[in-house]
Amino acid sequence: MSELDFPRLVIDEGKCKANIRVMAAKLRNAQVRFRPHFKTHQSLAMGRWFRDEGVSAITVSSLQMADYFTRDGWRDITMAVPFSPLEAPLINKVAATASLHLITASPEAVKGLGPLLQHPVNLWIKIDAGYGRAGVKPEEEGIITAIAKEAAQWPLIQLKGLLGHAGHSYQARDHAGIMQVHESSLAIMAAAKAKYQSLIPGMEISLGDTPTCSIASQWPGVDELRPGNFVFYDLQQSQITSCTDDQIAVAMVCPIVDLRADRSEVIVHGGSVHFAKDWMKEADERLTFGCVAEKAEKGWGKVRRDWRLRSLSQEHGVLSVPAQDFSQFNVGDWLYILPVHSCLAADAMCGYYSTEGDYYDHFKTGYRR
Amino acid sequence: MSELDFPRLVIDEGKCKANIRVMAAKLRNAQVRFRPHFKTHQSLAMGRWFRDEGVSAITVSSLQMADYFTRDGWRDITMAVPFSPLEAPLINKVAATASLHLITASPEAVKGLGPLLQHPVNLWIKIDAGYGRAGVKPEEEGIITAIAKEAAQWPLIQLKGLLGHAGHSYQARDHAGIMQVHESSLAIMAAAKAKYQSLIPGMEISLGDTPTCSIASQWPGVDELRPGNFVFYDLQQSQITSCTDDQIAVAMVCPIVDLRADRSEVIVHGGSVHFAKDWMKEADERLTFGCVAEKAEKGWGKVRRDWRLRSLSQEHGVLSVPAQDFSQFNVGDWLYILPVHSCLAADAMCGYYSTEGDYYDHFKTGYRR
Repeated sequence: MSELDFPRLVIDEGKCKANIRVMAAKLRNAQVRFRPHFKTHQSLAMGRWFRDEGVSAITVSSLQMADYFTRDGWRDITMAVPFSPLEAPLINKVAATASLHLITASPEAVKGLGPLLQHPVNLWIKIDAGYGRAGVKPEEEGIITAIAKEAAQWPLIQLKGLLGHAGHSYQARDHAGIMQVHESSLAIMAAAKAKYQSLIPGMEISLGDTPTCSIASQWPGVDELRPGNFVFYDLQQSQITSCTDDQIAVAMVCPIVDLRADRSEVIVHGGSVHFAKDWMKEADERLTFGCVAEKAEKGWGKVRRDWRLRSLSQEHGVLSVPAQDFSQFNVGDWLYILPVHSCLAADAMCGYYSTEGDYYDHFKTGYRR
Repeated sequence: MSELDFPRLVIDEGKCKANIRVMAAKLRNAQVRFRPHFKTHQSLAMGRWFRDEGVSAITVSSLQMADYFTRDGWRDITMAVPFSPLEAPLINKVAATASLHLITASPEAVKGLGPLLQHPVNLWIKIDAGYGRAGVKPEEEGIITAIAKEAAQWPLIQLKGLLGHAGHSYQARDHAGIMQVHESSLAIMAAAKAKYQSLIPGMEISLGDTPTCSIASQWPGVDELRPGNFVFYDLQQSQITSCTDDQIAVAMVCPIVDLRADRSEVIVHGGSVHFAKDWMKEADERLTFGCVAEKAEKGWGKVRRDWRLRSLSQEHGVLSVPAQDFSQFNVGDWLYILPVHSCLAADAMCGYYSTEGDYYDHFKTGYRR
C-alpha cells in the first residue's frame, strides 16, 4: 500500500459488479432498455463490465466523453446534456462512427445545428419531468411543436422521442418518497406522450435516475432508463434509501496527518480536490462531507456515521469523532472514507485503484482529442 | 472558438502575469522570501511565469505535485500539508533531487519517518495561527518540544522553523478585517518564535494566505510567505476585498443550452464537475456559484453580479437573471462565468485555454509517476 498515491480512490470490484448485475437483471425483467449513464465512472475498463451484462447503449454528459467511449467500440450513445450548435464539430466527429442521440428544449438549437450536420443524429425533446431544472414543460405546446417542425426541416435529424430526468428523487428520504417521484414522473411522461404522439412517429420515452431505478420495478410506457450513480452508490444514495451502506462500492483512502485531542478531531489529507464539495445534512442538521468505514479483511465494512468529515478545505479534511473513540486514531495510519457523492469524487480523482490490485482509467486523464 | 472544448477554462494572461508581478514586487520590497503556493495553478507553464519574476522556492499540496515540479527544475519545495510516514517512498524520491520542506504537528509522524529517510529533508512545525484547522497551538509546549526532540534523533532531518496558515482571513469582508487577521497571526507567530527560539537554531517563520498578502505590506519577523490563489483570484477573493473584479484572471466559457423564460433562468453546460461546488453567500444570503462577466474586445470585462449561477448540478448550471435582461440570452451563444473559487475550478478543469490562443498544462493530466 505504501508506494501508492495518497489520497486515492479505491473501488470494491465485487460490490461494483454486483450493482451492475442487479440493475441489468432488473431492467431486463422489466423489458426496458438499459442505457446506463457513464458520467459516474467515466472509465473504459468499467464500461466493459456493463458490456458483459449485455449493455450496448450508453449515456454520457459531454461530446468529449462520447468521443472517448467510441474508442472502445460503443456505437449507441446519448449525450444527456442539451447540446449547443457550437459543438457541431464534435457532434459530427462522434456521429461519423456512432448512433448519437442529442437532447434539446430549444427550437433555436435545432435550427443552429441543422446546416452544420454532416452525419445523421437522433434527437430527443428534453421534458421537465417535475425536477424543475432544464427542459420543456409538457404544456408548452408552442416550443414542442416548434422543435418538431424545425427537426423535420433537416434530413439528418431523426426525432426519436421525449426524454426526462426525475432529479427531484434526490429529495426523497424513504421508499415511499422515491415511489411518489417515480409515479409522478411516469404520469408526466405518459401525458406528454399521449399529447404529442402524432408529432413523432414511433415516439419513445426515456427516463431514469438512480433512486427510482433502484427502488421501482415497473416502468409502464417507458422504453429506456438511464441511471448512473448506482454503479458506485454513496452516502447520499444511502440517505435517500436507494441503497444500503453495503452496496457503496468506492472509498477514499486518506492518511491521518494530525490529531487534535482538544477538539476530538482527526485531520486527514483528503479535501475538496479529492471528495469534491457536495455535502449532506444529517438528521441533526449538521453538514457531512464523508464518513469513515471500518477496515475489513478485504476492503471496508461497517460505516461509522459518528466518524464524519465535518469540513473540507482544499486538501485537508477534518473528522469529528466521539471523544471515547479518539484513542483509536494514529498519525501514520490511514482510513477508508466513503464519499457523499461518488460521481463527483470519481471525477475529481481521475482514476481508480481496486480491491483486486488493479488500476482503472478515467476519461479526464485518458482522453486526448 | 467552435472547435474547442465546452465548457473550458480560459486564463487572461495579462491579468495573471500582472497578479504575479505585483505580488513578487511587493514581497521583494518587504524583504520576505516569496514561496508561492502552486496548488492553485498546478501548471509547469505558469510556474515559469513565476521564475521570470525571480521566484525559486515554491509550495505544493502533495508529494506527487512536488515530484511534478521537480521535472521542470524546481529545487526548493515545501509540501504544505502535514506529511504521513506512509509517504516515505515519494518523500525520498523528491528529496533525492530537491530541497524538500515537510510540515508536521505530530512527534509520531517524525518518529515514523525517521528510519525510512534516505535523503535530507527540512522540517517545519505547523502552528495553528488562529485558523483552528490543523497545527499545534503555541501553548502546547509538550508537543512542540517532543517534535524538536524527535527531529534531533535523525541526522537527515533538519528542523527549520514554524509554519502557519491564517486561513481565517477568508472570513473577512473588508480590509480592516483582513488586517486584523494579519496582525493577530503575526503576533501568534512572534510569540511562538520567542518562546521556542532556543529549540530551533536559526528558526525561520513561514506564513501567507492570499487575503493578508494582498492587503498588508509589512511582515515583521516573517521570513517567507506562501500565497497561492492570488495568481487567478476569484469572486470569493473579491468579496473578501483581497482583489478587485478586474484582477480575476480565469473564467469558464459555458454554452447556453436552454432558456426558461417562465423562471427567467438561463441553463448552461457548466456544472459542479467544472466549477467544483464551493459557494459564497451574497448580501441577500442567497448562495452563488459564479457570475457572468461581459465579453470584452479581448477576454472579459464588467462582472454582472445580477447574472449569477444560483445552482449547480453535475453538468448543468442555472443562471438567474433579471427579467428585463432575459432577451439578451440566446441558445447557441456562450458566456464567460467567473468562478467562486478558482483553485477548485482549475483543479476540476485540468488545463487552461488562454486569451493569447495558447493551451497550458495541469498537474492532474500531465503527471505520471
